[in-house]
Amino acid sequence: MTETVISSASREVVIGFERPFVIIGERINPTGRKILAEEMKRGDFSRVEADALAQVAAGAQMLDVNAGIPLADEPALLARAIELVQVVTSVPLSIDSSIVAALESGLAVYQGKALVNSVTGEEERLESVLPLVARHGAAVVAISNDETGISEDPDVRYEVARKIVERAADYGIPRCDVVVDPLVMPIGAINSAGRQVMCLVKRLREELKVNTTCGASNVSFGLPNRNGINSAFLTMAIGAGMTSAITNPMHREVMQAVLGADVMMGHDPDCARWIRKYREPASESGVVGARGERVRRRRRA
Amino acid sequence: MTETVISSASREVVIGFERPFVIIGERINPTGRKILAEEMKRGDFSRVEADALAQVAAGAQMLDVNAGIPLADEPALLARAIELVQVVTSVPLSIDSSIVAALESGLAVYQGKALVNSVTGEEERLESVLPLVARHGAAVVAISNDETGISEDPDVRYEVARKIVERAADYGIPRCDVVVDPLVMPIGAINSAGRQVMCLVKRLREELKVNTTCGASNVSFGLPNRNGINSAFLTMAIGAGMTSAITNPMHREVMQAVLGADVMMGHDPDCARWIRKYREPASESGVVGARGERVRRRRRA
Repeated sequence: MTETVISSASREVVIGFERPFVIIGERINPTGRKILAEEMKRGDFSRVEADALAQVAAGAQMLDVNAGIPLADEPALLARAIELVQVVTSVPLSIDSSIVAALESGLAVYQGKALVNSVTGEEERLESVLPLVARHGAAVVAISNDETGISEDPDVRYEVARKIVERAADYGIPRCDVVVDPLVMPIGAINSAGRQVMCLVKRLREELKVNTTCGASNVSFGLPNRNGINSAFLTMAIGAGMTSAITNPMHREVMQAVLGADVMMGHDPDCARWIRKYREPASESGVVGARGERVRRRRRA
Repeated sequence: MTETVISSASREVVIGFERPFVIIGERINPTGRKILAEEMKRGDFSRVEADALAQVAAGAQMLDVNAGIPLADEPALLARAIELVQVVTSVPLSIDSSIVAALESGLAVYQGKALVNSVTGEEERLESVLPLVARHGAAVVAISNDETGISEDPDVRYEVARKIVERAADYGIPRCDVVVDPLVMPIGAINSAGRQVMCLVKRLREELKVNTTCGASNVSFGLPNRNGINSAFLTMAIGAGMTSAITNPMHREVMQAVLGADVMMGHDPDCARWIRKYREPASESGVVGARGERVRRRRRA
């Protein structure tokens, strides 16, 4: 039973086989967010702080922080963002960059045990990221691709993950501190992507005995009603044994899917969390659950 | 790869491992529907017909028909209901009764190959229902309980299913015409009910090689936001290999979960059905998906 402990200065989150699913909020990322990118570049982090608070309020147990802005001083921006997010919230963070110097400056200001996002199976990445993770006693997201790219064959991706886990061990990073991302392909393009991931998650859990994470929204790329697809994916992935995801907790439907999946897995004792969240207040008819709203709307139409 | 073919006079539905999930509409059932029960009893089947049409329009590929009304002539009522439903819709039917004489009169008026709902592992049921199923060349739902009741041990339930499949074979009913209901317990009372069912569905598929069905709504009994729980259950059950369910297709959320699960399983080639259903018409801003509606509502608040 593998458990990955991530911590802030005052709080611990455990990603584990017999634990509730961990949502890592993905919103603090300027990629594709032009306004956020411009603000961060000129030193305005107010949206970063607001996004941090909103995601935690929506149910994220951890936050991913990324400052990848072209032509900007990413190491400085990432460090600043991490400092400020640590002031407004106490949830543990995932430090996200493809630039090793940025991971380094982020780790330097982080208080606690971070999740470093990420290392791949590429030699150059392994040799630059893993020593850093080891030195800081952090955990790391291991993405199952290497120099040859992303294989469509789940067996190849499994082997890449195994290689990363072994190399991490060489650096003194235990298996429980490697969280593998099996890589989720857009199912609109590759119809077998869903079953591929389920199969891979199962092997990663049962054979390699590691926790797993993923960028869940990728699965629905190009399709309408993306939250519907993301919900189906997360529910099924949790059923197959996935233990965390980097996704957007602001989508009510996706969060409901995760809470429901936790109930199904027996990870919500007495369904207490579900009941607390969805109990319909008898006296306030305007505050009933979403279903009630919809039914009433339909009747009026 | 097991396939169960059910048919009406003009249409065939195949329940199978590599097929889209089959929704059997559960609404035509007077249990707990007082008005429907009274109407049926006095010979008014207008609501039965309306429910048939509405469920098919909502996406049910089959309909379950039940006429279980205390102190009524169930065999006559069930036969009448089946005759009328066959007039208004061409989808294949599941003939649902705990009274053998009612199953018999339903089968007598049914045109096609029906699904008989149900037989259990109880000796008396096996010996009365299976000969009837064999004589009509029908398929049958096998519920995995017996004289000792419903076991909480999935292994015991598996053994009951195996016994029914073997006994059916003695009567010349092939394994592909036995659709096993693993029995879903309310997860609010038994927190392990979800994992029990997933584990059982997997064994029924891989070892016993049978199709499966279930009364899906039972899982959420006593909990708030039942559609949320039902959706999580169905998605995960489909991921584990379940191939059909007797449930209410009128719940948009539940149907979306099933369609999304079919996409995940690779049973919606090119996601064509998903895209057809959820494509947002560019020109009609008032007809966007539920998410758009909700976001706009929230912004107004």
